[in-house]
Amino acid sequence: MYKAQGRDLVITNGIVVTQDDAGSVFENGSVCVSRERIVYVGNADGIDAGSAGRIMDADGGIIMPGLINTHTHAAMTCFRGLADDLELMDWLNNNILPAESRLDYDKVYAGTMLACAEMMLSGTTCFSDMYLFEDAVAAAVHAAGMRAVVGEVLYDFDSPSFGTIDNGFEYTRNLIEKWRDDPLITIAVEPHSPYLCAPALLEKAAGMAYEYDVPFIIHLAETKEETAAIMNRYGRSPVAHLADIGILSPRVLACHCVDVDEKDIGLLKQYGVKVSHNPESNMKLASGIAPVPAMIDAGVCVGLGTDGPASNNNLDMFMEMDTAAKIHKVNLLDPTAMSARTVLKMATRDAARALGLDRETGSLEVGKKADIVIVDIKKPHMTPLYDVFSQLVYSASGSDVDTVLINGRIVVENRRLLAFDITEAMDGMRAVAREISTAIGYKSN
Amino acid sequence: MYKAQGRDLVITNGIVVTQDDAGSVFENGSVCVSRERIVYVGNADGIDAGSAGRIMDADGGIIMPGLINTHTHAAMTCFRGLADDLELMDWLNNNILPAESRLDYDKVYAGTMLACAEMMLSGTTCFSDMYLFEDAVAAAVHAAGMRAVVGEVLYDFDSPSFGTIDNGFEYTRNLIEKWRDDPLITIAVEPHSPYLCAPALLEKAAGMAYEYDVPFIIHLAETKEETAAIMNRYGRSPVAHLADIGILSPRVLACHCVDVDEKDIGLLKQYGVKVSHNPESNMKLASGIAPVPAMIDAGVCVGLGTDGPASNNNLDMFMEMDTAAKIHKVNLLDPTAMSARTVLKMATRDAARALGLDRETGSLEVGKKADIVIVDIKKPHMTPLYDVFSQLVYSASGSDVDTVLINGRIVVENRRLLAFDITEAMDGMRAVAREISTAIGYKSN
Repeated sequence: MYKAQGRDLVITNGIVVTQDDAGSVFENGSVCVSRERIVYVGNADGIDAGSAGRIMDADGGIIMPGLINTHTHAAMTCFRGLADDLELMDWLNNNILPAESRLDYDKVYAGTMLACAEMMLSGTTCFSDMYLFEDAVAAAVHAAGMRAVVGEVLYDFDSPSFGTIDNGFEYTRNLIEKWRDDPLITIAVEPHSPYLCAPALLEKAAGMAYEYDVPFIIHLAETKEETAAIMNRYGRSPVAHLADIGILSPRVLACHCVDVDEKDIGLLKQYGVKVSHNPESNMKLASGIAPVPAMIDAGVCVGLGTDGPASNNNLDMFMEMDTAAKIHKVNLLDPTAMSARTVLKMATRDAARALGLDRETGSLEVGKKADIVIVDIKKPHMTPLYDVFSQLVYSASGSDVDTVLINGRIVVENRRLLAFDITEAMDGMRAVAREISTAIGYKSN
Repeated sequence: MYKAQGRDLVITNGIVVTQDDAGSVFENGSVCVSRERIVYVGNADGIDAGSAGRIMDADGGIIMPGLINTHTHAAMTCFRGLADDLELMDWLNNNILPAESRLDYDKVYAGTMLACAEMMLSGTTCFSDMYLFEDAVAAAVHAAGMRAVVGEVLYDFDSPSFGTIDNGFEYTRNLIEKWRDDPLITIAVEPHSPYLCAPALLEKAAGMAYEYDVPFIIHLAETKEETAAIMNRYGRSPVAHLADIGILSPRVLACHCVDVDEKDIGLLKQYGVKVSHNPESNMKLASGIAPVPAMIDAGVCVGLGTDGPASNNNLDMFMEMDTAAKIHKVNLLDPTAMSARTVLKMATRDAARALGLDRETGSLEVGKKADIVIVDIKKPHMTPLYDVFSQLVYSASGSDVDTVLINGRIVVENRRLLAFDITEAMDGMRAVAREISTAIGYKSN
């Protein structure tokens, strides 16, 4: 019998989906949080909550680990819905790049705050970000109280954020040193992709990631066009190219991996590379369908992600899970592919592993940080309840999230954001959007 | 200047997305409803609301036509999440059919009430249903206050609902006569499919639909396996088979049409057949991807649907729109395929046309019935707003629906169901699920 202490928060009266190794579920379960850590997970009758500082009634809902978004560009909330249904080059060259050239620290901060509000309200407690002005991203994440891996995007040409690539490495080094002691923020080294980064840049980036022992995150094999370009330039596939220049390792998170073949998958496995799967973005941008079931079969760790809100257009990981479960079934013409359990793993424990955060988050286990979500099941679309995994993946959406804890702090309760002022975040974004619209001469509808 | 009367409801302060022929949008628009009909749609300054009985403030939200779900089996809420990620025959023979054999009038009524609650809350105002015990469906729809097309499923073997097929035709005839004068309910003749219905059944069904001038709704070309079976039996594709036996006509709604080729599409167009597209179910059951862009290009009217909640597993038409827009982009590797505007049409005006209800619903136009939805845009994931079509299709979900009117009656307001007791509907379903679980020996998780 675990005896709760005065400073403990005990969450009771819920179905606890732990996402531990065994996939344990406690139909009438409790979770106890002491400061930022989980100190009890199990049956309700295994804990004496009498002396607990607070008892939180989950009202029969599902108590689960916070979802982890392994790849996004949070501040692209600034461009959500700005230019959809266009050819990729039209989208990029005539819309996104001109709009991005207007970005600055304040806009990225505003965009990230809005994204944090959206993510928290929809049950995401941790995300991995690649963008410009990432010091603003880190500052926003810190202010919001989220867990995140953030890294400044690096490429061969000058950046609106830092200027030349030498400054980019300096910028990244400063980020690492500035945020090193933050308990919720991890800085990563993030070269954009093999097609926008020459081997020398990639090698230097890998060296820096090794030096500081931080993640190395890169877009990889997103489209057939990328493969053709890399083949043409280096005579090998994007994955083989990174293997050949010696930068693949377990610290590498490769985002997308849409256009990979069996040999590429073998390399990803061989080097312990982690993959971020972003099905909705890959569908919307018509990039293709990543062979995720084959990667998982081969033993590659795959985490789920939404990609940026300009190519999705939301950051709802519940909807992303639904899509991930369905797209591979139809692609393989196999209804048993990508079960609800598999997909929930990709959004929790495997996502944590993909980001190197599996000792901290990704499951409800004693000793882990308290990143916890309570999902309301007293809704028509969540009724009846036969199978919690099916319900979470195929029926739920982010709006069913009732309560969210990050690192032991209650950031959402009764569907209300407690962490910061949501009205201010939305107003801030509307001001940014008006400025961008005017600057690029955007005319709506 | 339209002058509102004392019995009028004027909805103001919203962005009106009309879905009329021209796709008109009024950025600061108003809609006026008198009893069950729309009497004004346009700019806010074109109406004098001074004498209106009630003014409803849309709070800057999107005012749009109610969504129309062109194909579902509403009462399959009874089996939501009961048996996912299984082989089709395992799902059907070992799970769904044994469970369905336990159905009766009361369970179907309970399942339909729950589905109506879910649909209303997520902005669906009209749906088309094919199932067993459809008199219970019609009664539930009537009690709920939804608009619907309902029809008893007919096939060559005996039904748990009506027994022999002769009784099935009698049952359908009784339905037609019983519900003939209901302003919200249309009865359709609904043979299951060419593989479960012999030509004689299909011909008789077509005759009855012609006799009463009602829709004829059928599953058609859902899988490659169906095509193979029909080819084997009749030496022609499912579509060609129906054309050859002379039952294709503008009153036919063909659901799924996944496995159709160019010649089939030509026949659908030639006979004015309407199609219901159900992408999430087709993905989840691994049926395939219907060539919807080709059908639309050929001039076939395609409406959107969710299919039943056992193969989706929700009835959220906003999420279905999102999936419909994305799946074809990736399938054709063309990001311009299936724009947000096209998809919204499939869920509104074209859906109404598919059901033969386009004189009543599907758009906000003077003279049409007042099936109206207000979508809240003051949420992080709906911010900023560049393009209403993109926002509705790619960012929204059903939970963003704030207010719903059906036939002029306010059935949802401030996200609360006013039409009937939602707690009772959920409790009723939980009791049904317990009974089914016990009967079939279901063990959860």
